Amino acid sequence: MDELVFDVFARNCTSRETMEHATGRWGTLALVALLDGTTRFNALRRRVDGISEKMLSQTLQALERDGLVLREARPTIPPHVEYSLTGLGTDVAKQLHTLVELLESRMPEVMTAREAYDAR
Amino acid sequence: MDELVFDVFARNCTSRETMEHATGRWGTLALVALLDGTTRFNALRRRVDGISEKMLSQTLQALERDGLVLREARPTIPPHVEYSLTGLGTDVAKQLHTLVELLESRMPEVMTAREAYDAR
Repeated sequence: MDELVFDVFARNCTSRETMEHATGRWGTLALVALLDGTTRFNALRRRVDGISEKMLSQTLQALERDGLVLREARPTIPPHVEYSLTGLGTDVAKQLHTLVELLESRMPEVMTAREAYDAR
Repeated sequence: MDELVFDVFARNCTSRETMEHATGRWGTLALVALLDGTTRFNALRRRVDGISEKMLSQTLQALERDGLVLREARPTIPPHVEYSLTGLGTDVAKQLHTLVELLESRMPEVMTAREAYDAR
């Protein structure tokens, strides 16, 4: 079988879909939050400040389907659902975490750039 | 002056806005494409397969305002506009490139996970 080649620059490549799930606002925040370990849905929702229940559900479902996140329903009373990262999810989340830390640490530069831009 | 602390997990933190510009489908693709060097608008549009002219304009404008991308209008006939990465933009784009390469290389795992998920 030929080796499959994935290219996010090609509009119909599946890898672009996965990139969209893993990046962006909610994918990034959910994955980075899960680096802290297995987390219940509601705790995750509090951590990812501003996300709606529906959006968190959709985000996690897409990440689960792509094999980045593991969903486990615990048969407790009341039942609760826990999420954790798979091996692949951990690798992706670590990259995203590095990116987030880079952006956070460089925000003073961003603020200066914005002031200059807005003052034109 | 107190040191400013930026936290993408806080819904109103400016850093989340910048994260949204730099990640996501179009921000990621535009930044990674610009790692190849200074690029004209139309060449960038061809490279980022599937992006509309309007969306590329908006993406580049947000990245320019955040200080990640430099826009230069050349006084040629006809005039043309070139885009390149700033120092900060290069650092961010390199991180995104690593992430994209990771995702592309792990797509076989993603495909397997999807098949298992869809077969449930």
